[in-house]
Amino acid sequence: MKTITSPSNPTIKFIRSLRQRKERKSTGFFYVEGIRLIGEAVRTQQRFLHVIICPELLDSPFGKELVTTIEGQGVDTISVPEAIFNSISLKEGPQGIAAVLEENWGVLEELIIKKGLWVALDAVQDPGNLGSILRSLDAAGGQGIILLDESTDPYHPTSVRASMGGIFSQKIIQCSFATFSNWKTRSTYPLIGTLCGEGLNYRRYNYPEDMILLMGSEQKGLSSKHKEICDGVVTIPMKGTVDSLNLSNATSIVLFEIFAQLQDSIK
Amino acid sequence: MKTITSPSNPTIKFIRSLRQRKERKSTGFFYVEGIRLIGEAVRTQQRFLHVIICPELLDSPFGKELVTTIEGQGVDTISVPEAIFNSISLKEGPQGIAAVLEENWGVLEELIIKKGLWVALDAVQDPGNLGSILRSLDAAGGQGIILLDESTDPYHPTSVRASMGGIFSQKIIQCSFATFSNWKTRSTYPLIGTLCGEGLNYRRYNYPEDMILLMGSEQKGLSSKHKEICDGVVTIPMKGTVDSLNLSNATSIVLFEIFAQLQDSIK
Repeated sequence: MKTITSPSNPTIKFIRSLRQRKERKSTGFFYVEGIRLIGEAVRTQQRFLHVIICPELLDSPFGKELVTTIEGQGVDTISVPEAIFNSISLKEGPQGIAAVLEENWGVLEELIIKKGLWVALDAVQDPGNLGSILRSLDAAGGQGIILLDESTDPYHPTSVRASMGGIFSQKIIQCSFATFSNWKTRSTYPLIGTLCGEGLNYRRYNYPEDMILLMGSEQKGLSSKHKEICDGVVTIPMKGTVDSLNLSNATSIVLFEIFAQLQDSIK
Repeated sequence: MKTITSPSNPTIKFIRSLRQRKERKSTGFFYVEGIRLIGEAVRTQQRFLHVIICPELLDSPFGKELVTTIEGQGVDTISVPEAIFNSISLKEGPQGIAAVLEENWGVLEELIIKKGLWVALDAVQDPGNLGSILRSLDAAGGQGIILLDESTDPYHPTSVRASMGGIFSQKIIQCSFATFSNWKTRSTYPLIGTLCGEGLNYRRYNYPEDMILLMGSEQKGLSSKHKEICDGVVTIPMKGTVDSLNLSNATSIVLFEIFAQLQDSIK
């Protein structure tokens, strides 16, 4: 383990720079923080570039064990004083453990191999929404997510944190709608879209075990080009004055209907 | 309509100060922005203190109609240049219409009169979660929300925006757990709690038409003191590696189960 005490050390500067999307994109690395997320990263065998610890802050025995495990794998381990840790931390009440990991992007072809339940999101904008969809998808036994067109970055710190580890358990695929549409025509993998106010009641649809749930963006919902490539379209009936739900809430409601149907069919 | 051109005008300063919770609390006013939300505020007859418009930005005919309506009700209407509007605006791409409204807090006794579906949240921390729960609750035909103990402010700009108008359609009640527990014992209004990994599968519970759905905080879930006063406890079965869902996703999943059961029983 090495110790860094200068806040202008290049590694410390690099870690802070990963807050910016362009730095993540050009390097292929992202930042995670906290015992729980780093525990999940170890469990799911993510690729670590650095582990950063702050001995004054890291008092959890499980956290210390994690550091030993990661260090034992030959990962560069850096100890920093509290002031430096606070300068890289994005949490209130930091736990004294953070890491830089390699982004892990999948390709559409993996979908055919893994099969199961996937979510495709058109141009999702809010990293908190994306992260909490990854969390719900993981909890509903999903395999991964497909980000269509200009989407927010799944490796944005807010998305990573909101995913509660879903960022590691779920495959992350990004492609244009044209690529996806082409692949969908060839693969015939079932695609069910969710629309506002149009389609079958989402509770009356019989979902296949292997499928992609397609959701529109926060602002626009699903357009007709998206609808055209769907094998089925469902809607969430609602009343009241709002005419739509938050994207991550709508996705979770349909995902847990799919999950429950599958559980019932197993019993 | 009066025109203000100085950024240091006391009214402009007051409007900006409403970003802070303590200012909202001491004055009882809050800030809303955008055509849609202000349209909902008019429709649901909220009490306006000021309407602020920026003629260079407000080009929507519906937006202009709204201003005429509000002005016709004798509300103080202020026109400001773009630079000042941008200094009070919290939106990217502001639409040139904002307002200061009176907060509207309800009391537990109203619940017995209104009846129907309510949500109680223990110490909710994230204003985005609170707002999107208000949005889902509105969409599920709910009546209002009860905020227990130290909760985030429902009139926080993030909560107001995320509610998409649910902040106006839903009654907002805030009280201590002790007060709520006392009231619950007297009123016998049905209370169903949601727990992680404990309780009946939320899809197998027969929800009454009049009920409160009780959800724990983001960090802690429901404690035993909360559980004790519940008439029933349900859980959302899940698999995967995460052990819980985002609070607003979990609330939405159970709310839409309750809503669907009620719709099915009407048919």
